[in-house]
Amino acid sequence: MIELAKIKGVTVLSDQSSLFNYSFDGMKRSFFPSLVLQVHLAEAVGSILKLANKKQIPVVTRGAGSSLTGSATPIRGGWVLDLSLLRKVRIDPKNRLCQVQTGVVVAKLQEATKRRNLYYPPDPSSVQWCTVGGNIACNAGGLHCTKYGVTRDYVLGLKGYLPTGEFVEWGKSTRKFATGYNIRDLWVGSEGTLGVITEAYLRLIPKPTTRWATLAIFATEEKALRASLELLKRGVQPAVMEFLDILSVQGAEKAIGKSLFSGIEVGAVLLVELDGTALSVREEKKVCLEWLREEALNFSQAKTEKAIEKLWSIRKNCSSAMFELGDLKLNEDISVPLDKQVLLIRFVRKLRKQCQLPIAVFGHAGDGNLHVNIMYHSNQIEERQRAAKAVESLMKQVVALGGAISGEHGVGLAKTPFMSDQFRSVEIETMKKIKRALDPLNILNPGKLFDSFAMWEMDPVDVKLPWDHRK
Amino acid sequence: MIELAKIKGVTVLSDQSSLFNYSFDGMKRSFFPSLVLQVHLAEAVGSILKLANKKQIPVVTRGAGSSLTGSATPIRGGWVLDLSLLRKVRIDPKNRLCQVQTGVVVAKLQEATKRRNLYYPPDPSSVQWCTVGGNIACNAGGLHCTKYGVTRDYVLGLKGYLPTGEFVEWGKSTRKFATGYNIRDLWVGSEGTLGVITEAYLRLIPKPTTRWATLAIFATEEKALRASLELLKRGVQPAVMEFLDILSVQGAEKAIGKSLFSGIEVGAVLLVELDGTALSVREEKKVCLEWLREEALNFSQAKTEKAIEKLWSIRKNCSSAMFELGDLKLNEDISVPLDKQVLLIRFVRKLRKQCQLPIAVFGHAGDGNLHVNIMYHSNQIEERQRAAKAVESLMKQVVALGGAISGEHGVGLAKTPFMSDQFRSVEIETMKKIKRALDPLNILNPGKLFDSFAMWEMDPVDVKLPWDHRK
Repeated sequence: MIELAKIKGVTVLSDQSSLFNYSFDGMKRSFFPSLVLQVHLAEAVGSILKLANKKQIPVVTRGAGSSLTGSATPIRGGWVLDLSLLRKVRIDPKNRLCQVQTGVVVAKLQEATKRRNLYYPPDPSSVQWCTVGGNIACNAGGLHCTKYGVTRDYVLGLKGYLPTGEFVEWGKSTRKFATGYNIRDLWVGSEGTLGVITEAYLRLIPKPTTRWATLAIFATEEKALRASLELLKRGVQPAVMEFLDILSVQGAEKAIGKSLFSGIEVGAVLLVELDGTALSVREEKKVCLEWLREEALNFSQAKTEKAIEKLWSIRKNCSSAMFELGDLKLNEDISVPLDKQVLLIRFVRKLRKQCQLPIAVFGHAGDGNLHVNIMYHSNQIEERQRAAKAVESLMKQVVALGGAISGEHGVGLAKTPFMSDQFRSVEIETMKKIKRALDPLNILNPGKLFDSFAMWEMDPVDVKLPWDHRK
Repeated sequence: MIELAKIKGVTVLSDQSSLFNYSFDGMKRSFFPSLVLQVHLAEAVGSILKLANKKQIPVVTRGAGSSLTGSATPIRGGWVLDLSLLRKVRIDPKNRLCQVQTGVVVAKLQEATKRRNLYYPPDPSSVQWCTVGGNIACNAGGLHCTKYGVTRDYVLGLKGYLPTGEFVEWGKSTRKFATGYNIRDLWVGSEGTLGVITEAYLRLIPKPTTRWATLAIFATEEKALRASLELLKRGVQPAVMEFLDILSVQGAEKAIGKSLFSGIEVGAVLLVELDGTALSVREEKKVCLEWLREEALNFSQAKTEKAIEKLWSIRKNCSSAMFELGDLKLNEDISVPLDKQVLLIRFVRKLRKQCQLPIAVFGHAGDGNLHVNIMYHSNQIEERQRAAKAVESLMKQVVALGGAISGEHGVGLAKTPFMSDQFRSVEIETMKKIKRALDPLNILNPGKLFDSFAMWEMDPVDVKLPWDHRK
């Protein structure tokens, strides 16, 4: 297209292989774009969007494409806007913040901050690949959010482009901003439907100097989940608190090739990490050990960085092990109030029996954001149907418990069938009104959030992505 | 009005005295409403708004009316919706949160949380009078926000009514929520123009067990402001860090009737509070004392709660003392990046000479949110004009420094003339588009944020409000 070629700072890809590679994200359902636009200069985004509006062509913004919800999938075709080459990072230790372009990989940002003795906490499992922009788009969480909060809690200011192509800034690099409507936080989590974010000011905190971790086993799942409340009650705020149900534990044991504590029947596992200054960790550890002696069947401690990382590898092995149970996974990152986790786990036990499918639960017990993994086999039509039914009743239960159908992945395509469980129709209509007000021609990421899509009715592409645990 | 009388849970006031009392807020510019509606049942709000839309009557929501910006003033007449009677509070220690109606006074909420060993940090100066709803409406800050963040950082979920009267919920009581557009955070800080909030889930944190405070004097304002960065660099995160410039110090000394440190010429003062566990405070205090010995001219320590409160009374006396310098104040709660505070204070020194008016600066140096108080006499037309000019050039400078024209008070009427300094016209147009999408008849709080209002051209009402420091 001649007009595209005139825009400075864009590489246009149109070969079949590129179009295929950009046709899906971590959800692996493929829809071909008409073109891929690799952006080298942030300023190009405005011109691209103006042209897209003129020609009424859908535009889907993409970072690493590691989204698990299909939010970066060009379901209506059009242009994929690849921002992964916008990688400038400036750390400002004096003001404890950084100024980053949104194509920066989150792990790279974390490394850069750590070199300055600072810390950027959000750490989704995909941290080695996912970009700052993607994290902002879905308000990503991660292990350490239990103590430190999610992506939104670190965003001070955003720069980018309206769906219609005009450059805008929402918020500044200041700590406080109480001027005008908070469109910054509306952009965060809007999954690329309300604007294209090219730059962010992110708040940083001092790097904790000391870490300590423990792996503790409990007689029952309930006991482990209640324990998470008990620790808080005793005044300890873990940096990480991960829950592994029995299926996840078995999977992890299989993956590491030995039992976690031989001779003891494990009901569930908690992985707890404390961090802070040497003194504060010592203080919290004391309480934590008391609690473990009272509540846990057994526990092991990890004091060195190496031992701690080894311990986390157990958690990371969970996802991998899931694929022993099926070749497809419906990973539901639901979120419930802390004290409702026990009810949720009981519901999952019933659901497992009802749908006769393996369902493993692991995740962030410290903030009520558990990952419910419903496993099925793609070639078994009837298993698919049961999986679809299981997700449906899980979502209804989550809402009944006062929870959120997504705690950190976002809606994308994957959660669209359940939006009407989560929201009243007037609430969805309000969101749509905002979308229409900012994007009258529905250019940015159409088909997401509001149009129902049944992912289990479509076969995934057979590719191995860098972040795939699957063997 | 017959239709109003039919709505359950509302008391309608129409006597002149009530109409006068609700005709102004803390900014004291009076515009009479046609009726005052005291709401006893949250459900009444929906019916009231539907009626207001039908009859195209403006509705202004009000809590305590302590806003300093005129945001609760019925500038276009119509109905004032008084929510101060909605006062239910439920503390949920297990999930570390509370569920509150928005008429609850913030100090009452803080007392209730403290009884359960929990803590709700936002604490604007008006904490004894202002309501949770008002705090959410302007995203209020306060002294402890330096360490703990602002109101927005504590809001988990909101319930209330759209401008058109439909009941909606944005967010839940969960820690994480990544589902759909984040209209919760759009409501926070929207100053009653996008909805009426009747209930909130607020996050709580453990109550710090130990406090320690110091009053330190510095040779120059620059030295005090740089010191705030230096403390952060040394790894100390003060709970409070308040700056007092020389004019504020003189005022405070006059008010308490003695010099802060006799025999020493004071350039500026920092008040620093540390809090946390006994051990963490001890750790931070050690670093803090080292820093004080290196940087400060002198300092005193407050170790008991009583001594700490006495120390804070010095800060609180500042506002009172201001009125020795003029009978009207333009209080600008500007916010700049931490390292730009030195440049700001230099600018204020120049401005003072230029406009020949007393300008005192005190406020939250820990987060760059300084309060610049431009004093003038109401009966001196020419002083008014100079004050207006001074505000204008202050605002332009704040924006040039990458700052915000309001850090915690909001825009209301007071900051409207400077919105075009802060925002590009396309940014303001985007805000207006959202307003029109949600409130097509412009029912909720019309005239705020977007229509320019020159408060210095209008005389304030001569009343003494409960929170007035003025003698």
